[in-house]
Amino acid sequence: MATNGQTNGHTNGGVAAESRFDPTFTQKVIDATGPKCTPRLRKLMGSLIRHVHDFARENELTVEEWMQAVDMLNWAGKMSDDKRNETQLLCDIIGLESLVDEITFKLAAETDDAATASAILGPFFRHDAPILKNDSCIVHGVDDGESTYMHGKILDSVTKKPVAGAWVDIWQASTNGMYEQQDPNQVEFNLRGKFKTDENGYYGLYCLRPTTYPVPYDGPAGKLLDLLDRHPHRPAHIHVIVQKDGFKPVTTQIFDRKDRYLVDDSVFAVKDSLIVDFKPLSGNPKAVLELEYDFFIAPQGESHKRE
Amino acid sequence: MATNGQTNGHTNGGVAAESRFDPTFTQKVIDATGPKCTPRLRKLMGSLIRHVHDFARENELTVEEWMQAVDMLNWAGKMSDDKRNETQLLCDIIGLESLVDEITFKLAAETDDAATASAILGPFFRHDAPILKNDSCIVHGVDDGESTYMHGKILDSVTKKPVAGAWVDIWQASTNGMYEQQDPNQVEFNLRGKFKTDENGYYGLYCLRPTTYPVPYDGPAGKLLDLLDRHPHRPAHIHVIVQKDGFKPVTTQIFDRKDRYLVDDSVFAVKDSLIVDFKPLSGNPKAVLELEYDFFIAPQGESHKRE
Repeated sequence: MATNGQTNGHTNGGVAAESRFDPTFTQKVIDATGPKCTPRLRKLMGSLIRHVHDFARENELTVEEWMQAVDMLNWAGKMSDDKRNETQLLCDIIGLESLVDEITFKLAAETDDAATASAILGPFFRHDAPILKNDSCIVHGVDDGESTYMHGKILDSVTKKPVAGAWVDIWQASTNGMYEQQDPNQVEFNLRGKFKTDENGYYGLYCLRPTTYPVPYDGPAGKLLDLLDRHPHRPAHIHVIVQKDGFKPVTTQIFDRKDRYLVDDSVFAVKDSLIVDFKPLSGNPKAVLELEYDFFIAPQGESHKRE
Repeated sequence: MATNGQTNGHTNGGVAAESRFDPTFTQKVIDATGPKCTPRLRKLMGSLIRHVHDFARENELTVEEWMQAVDMLNWAGKMSDDKRNETQLLCDIIGLESLVDEITFKLAAETDDAATASAILGPFFRHDAPILKNDSCIVHGVDDGESTYMHGKILDSVTKKPVAGAWVDIWQASTNGMYEQQDPNQVEFNLRGKFKTDENGYYGLYCLRPTTYPVPYDGPAGKLLDLLDRHPHRPAHIHVIVQKDGFKPVTTQIFDRKDRYLVDDSVFAVKDSLIVDFKPLSGNPKAVLELEYDFFIAPQGESHKRE
């Protein structure tokens, strides 16, 4: 186990712990799995059981500690609904959603498609955002903030040609740090919209320069952050999903280069290629800033392996 | 990692996976923990984050698989209440409660107190069971089943002397496999009772020979068992908690030697020393079987280290 030089500070007590506790127990639990279990679930659950048991043995987990975790998960389940997913948020603050996103992106990047980097979906996406015409405004009833003209193209990552008729789904928090479904004072679907690229692959909309905000901390995720002596803040960002039939969808976030939490995101979602500059814009009465960003999407089913 | 011969069949892909994915990510998440976090929580969460991340990397966990797990945990939280704990049950079917119980018992057994082996509490304990006189019956309105006279002594595990005034808390499922709080047809507190040992350390009660039953499988734990191609059955058992001021409480279960699920408990709770024989009893109109079992409890604070 000591060969694992990368995991700095990691003292894996698994072997020693296993000699102290029943060395057959974990395999016995894994072996209870029946023959009709799918190979994938057998692999996942075998690995999960081994890690959970090693975790318990290495730390000599107490009944009280385990029950505190059970209570926290039950609390998260009860608090979750169609507008909020607290179990997902618990995963986010331990970096799991970002890691799964990295895994997904790395696997896709092993083809040569070079799509735009992905970032986590987060818990505030809504499937039913309104369809708007290009150059529409998604800001309703928010009178502070810096209005921004966000525009660019959707491009095929293989041919580099514009993709007409692609959907660009945008959502962002308001200047008070809340998404519309969290905030009774915002109109429904405020700061959300779906846009379709024109024949030149163009999309454009008026939005706000995004604002730093905390993840919700009135539930178990906030409790855990507090216990870990961590802040709940996320760097300012705009959520985007780009999709088009025949292409792999891209779920991502773009981040304001000037945000102080870029290096210290409470859910660990920032990637360098997703950091953008909001530039001053003059001569447009509808916006004071401009953000130009092109997204690359990879054709479905194409597989141009690098090696 | 290959040195770990005990974990048969375990191909730990952690190192290889870490070289493929960002090798700094996990440490970055761990290092976000602030200085005011307690040392114990820092250790637990550091270890948990490492195991969860290794699990995700080793299995190249997909977004869909992770979200299925999130949905299952939210479902468990929503289903849990003061009469049912589905997250606890999910832990039970992957052996976690039994493992934590083993850890607790092993740590206690490193003193020479030799208390009765523990077993998991399970989700059906109620704090408010009625106090009954010795030799009372806990069976109400159940007319099948084999009535059993269960009796014995509570003994000090150090002096081997009887402990007067100890509390023995007993609960069991009915012959239909359900605890009273699961079953609208049972009277409240059926098959539950608290008994106090007399001046000779004696306890006695009339109960039922316990019946094999399935853990509840109408929720996420049942769904997971089904996906794993596993049965939900538990070997027949009686739950017991023994406690007395000045002694460490013992939470345990005693199991019927004749049960077919002794070697195949869905929650992995059986220990050899907890397997008992129900013997024919004659000349007692109130019972057809007898179960004699003494429990040993260890004095609090005494620490007789073996080494």
